Amino acid sequence: MASTAAPLTIGLLGAGSVGSQVARTLVEERELISSRVGAPVRLAGVAVRDVEAPRDWRIPGELLTTDAEALVDQVDVVVELLGGLEPAASLIERALRRGAGVVTGNKALLATRGAELAAIAAEADVPLHYEAAVGGAIPILRPIQESLSGDRITKVMGIVNGTTNYILDQMDTTGAAFDDALHEAQRLGYAEADPTADVEGHDAAAKAAILGTLGFHAPFTIDDVHCEGITQVTSSDIEAAAASGYVIKLLAIAERFDGEGAVLRVHPTLLPRTHPLASVRGAFNAVFVVAENAGELMFYGQGAGGLPTSSAVLGDLVSAARSVRTAGAPAELSATDTTMTALPITKATTRYYVDLEVADREGVIAEIARVFADHHVSIEAMRQPGSVSADGEVDTDQDSGAIVQIVTHQAREKALADTVETLKEKEVVRAVSSVLRVEIDQQS
Amino acid sequence: MASTAAPLTIGLLGAGSVGSQVARTLVEERELISSRVGAPVRLAGVAVRDVEAPRDWRIPGELLTTDAEALVDQVDVVVELLGGLEPAASLIERALRRGAGVVTGNKALLATRGAELAAIAAEADVPLHYEAAVGGAIPILRPIQESLSGDRITKVMGIVNGTTNYILDQMDTTGAAFDDALHEAQRLGYAEADPTADVEGHDAAAKAAILGTLGFHAPFTIDDVHCEGITQVTSSDIEAAAASGYVIKLLAIAERFDGEGAVLRVHPTLLPRTHPLASVRGAFNAVFVVAENAGELMFYGQGAGGLPTSSAVLGDLVSAARSVRTAGAPAELSATDTTMTALPITKATTRYYVDLEVADREGVIAEIARVFADHHVSIEAMRQPGSVSADGEVDTDQDSGAIVQIVTHQAREKALADTVETLKEKEVVRAVSSVLRVEIDQQS
Repeated sequence: MASTAAPLTIGLLGAGSVGSQVARTLVEERELISSRVGAPVRLAGVAVRDVEAPRDWRIPGELLTTDAEALVDQVDVVVELLGGLEPAASLIERALRRGAGVVTGNKALLATRGAELAAIAAEADVPLHYEAAVGGAIPILRPIQESLSGDRITKVMGIVNGTTNYILDQMDTTGAAFDDALHEAQRLGYAEADPTADVEGHDAAAKAAILGTLGFHAPFTIDDVHCEGITQVTSSDIEAAAASGYVIKLLAIAERFDGEGAVLRVHPTLLPRTHPLASVRGAFNAVFVVAENAGELMFYGQGAGGLPTSSAVLGDLVSAARSVRTAGAPAELSATDTTMTALPITKATTRYYVDLEVADREGVIAEIARVFADHHVSIEAMRQPGSVSADGEVDTDQDSGAIVQIVTHQAREKALADTVETLKEKEVVRAVSSVLRVEIDQQS
Repeated sequence: MASTAAPLTIGLLGAGSVGSQVARTLVEERELISSRVGAPVRLAGVAVRDVEAPRDWRIPGELLTTDAEALVDQVDVVVELLGGLEPAASLIERALRRGAGVVTGNKALLATRGAELAAIAAEADVPLHYEAAVGGAIPILRPIQESLSGDRITKVMGIVNGTTNYILDQMDTTGAAFDDALHEAQRLGYAEADPTADVEGHDAAAKAAILGTLGFHAPFTIDDVHCEGITQVTSSDIEAAAASGYVIKLLAIAERFDGEGAVLRVHPTLLPRTHPLASVRGAFNAVFVVAENAGELMFYGQGAGGLPTSSAVLGDLVSAARSVRTAGAPAELSATDTTMTALPITKATTRYYVDLEVADREGVIAEIARVFADHHVSIEAMRQPGSVSADGEVDTDQDSGAIVQIVTHQAREKALADTVETLKEKEVVRAVSSVLRVEIDQQS
């Protein structure tokens, strides 16, 4: 992958919750981002309205400026995180026309003037990326545009607004009324002081327009979207839906009707609790895609928040920087972290599930627990479901051996393996029936 | 997006279940693929061992050849679907060195000589794509390589082998023994006559090496993967796991240990039934990714099969063709299907949930059902959960009105809306308490 040594400059417009995290990563992880681009990158400046305003991450004073145009005119890639139509649109157009790559997360702008900006980018032959505009950290726009570019998408259906999903989830799980759930969301920072754009469905409608445009390769705008919010959803609606096995979600739906066109709609929707989207809880987002060849696909992850969303912005930034500087070919299977080595399984940390047949006598449990303790492996759960006769069949007659099932906490594979070896040597242990590894969800 | 008029030629190596579908799409959907590439494409030939062999789709005789090298030497993009190390490796290298883009789904080759081939592609500055190598139709490698290129992945954990997932799922749901579940899988075509590569975990191990290589930007091979298959998993293991709230899945895991390296492993794993991967059933695949900024992400879809997998191959083909012919910039928000128009919501087909308060008298249900029938809207379910007093509170005292809840089958939104309007005019209908749309999983 060809690359030059001169640093590639980045201009950041806006330093809100997402912008602050993008700035932090570009400063603290400059080496990482440079290695991913294949050329050194440098954050040249951050344009803000007020240089004194408090931020999630303290941006070095020398990087801050109030002159966005001057910044746009001097960098290789512009990252627009101002939101709203203006001055965002003018600054993006200015950047594209002078040949700078642009990364934006501005869904309102894309759902209004996206086709126009894309045409300007195509004419200037520079990248315009906006993965962060839909689904926060979830890679969804690039897969739709590129991975599925050889297929025909028939339907896209997504939970793309975390605020409304949190509110509906609260109403469903706690029986709360809409107003109470909304206030709770505001208290936790999931909803803004003026929640209109979220609860009336406008935010989801902008995303529906973008998903429909990319999914069906036709330029739709937010005006093409039929939009109903969740303010009319009552707790009795949710109760009645639950009674019939449904959950109510605010969905952004883009559906193709062959030979006719597409319908784009946002509205509260009943989903069977068995549907993959039904179990998407709280502030998480998920997008369900149906394509003629691929069939059903689902993409799931964190739909909002400065840190998660910055991941999507930085991924776009790396892509844009690569195509500004190189042929745009990703490094693929060629290594860039040459220090990374493969470790033996003994170095892994995991949990074990151990199923033992032991002599059914006093003190056995203590003796077994001691073996784990000696190897510094802590036990999460220990069960004695029944007992076994000599032929290994479970029975309830206590004059035969007992079964003991143990699940450990995280420990090094080596310690776990050594524990099992010691158990096998114990006279009270008749057999180690099975040893299996356990993975627990990161969040639990 | 710049493009020339001369057709871009495609050479297909192999015409098995995936290759046949790729050939079919390139012939039957030539216009679609060409519009996605931004230049006309033409399938120049299909290299096979036996031109007479029966295939899922009858490839025109004039396209078939047994001379793979001659085909490779005359096309712009080579699609390798032969599988195995040779002659696949030599043919891919030959294509790359003469400047042709290459698309392959050959996980065994990539997990053995991937870094070497990627280096040749980078040196020749031509694309080498292989989305189909992991997760079938699921876009997972491109998101890891590109969407997450500005983040640091810490763990990748996937159900990447449909055969073993089907077998374990059968054992879990029907209590079947391993051998019986395997034979059922073979009968249904989910498992091959010689199931070794699947049940011993070799297929998953190759995918673990590819996921680890892309996720951690370091060149791992299948030899770096600790591999245990599912042949030792017994129905009593699965019973015991279930009793403790776990399900057993064969997972391909790549985990980073900062400052040390990475552990790549494939083995039967206990997962809490609440884990997002636990509900991935049958032949479906899913990959769970954890990154420092993005947090938890999950990608879900069909992991095997000729048709779904061809979607991933064709997506790579479009990308490779774009970068051979253009700057590689995707069309993004600029339209290519200019005929596609936005339709009003009345054109949508959906289902309705209607909650009515009606007079509690004889014949009322029949009268309401008649209204739906008159508008050609068929009723899927009708419930009468209780009755309501004048203040709308549910009570059980039958001298007040009754509640009727109806869920319809799919119908045009217009017919559904008209039905509701007519219901409102009915004297027996006291109130239409709520009208909500319903979406059902495509598969149900």
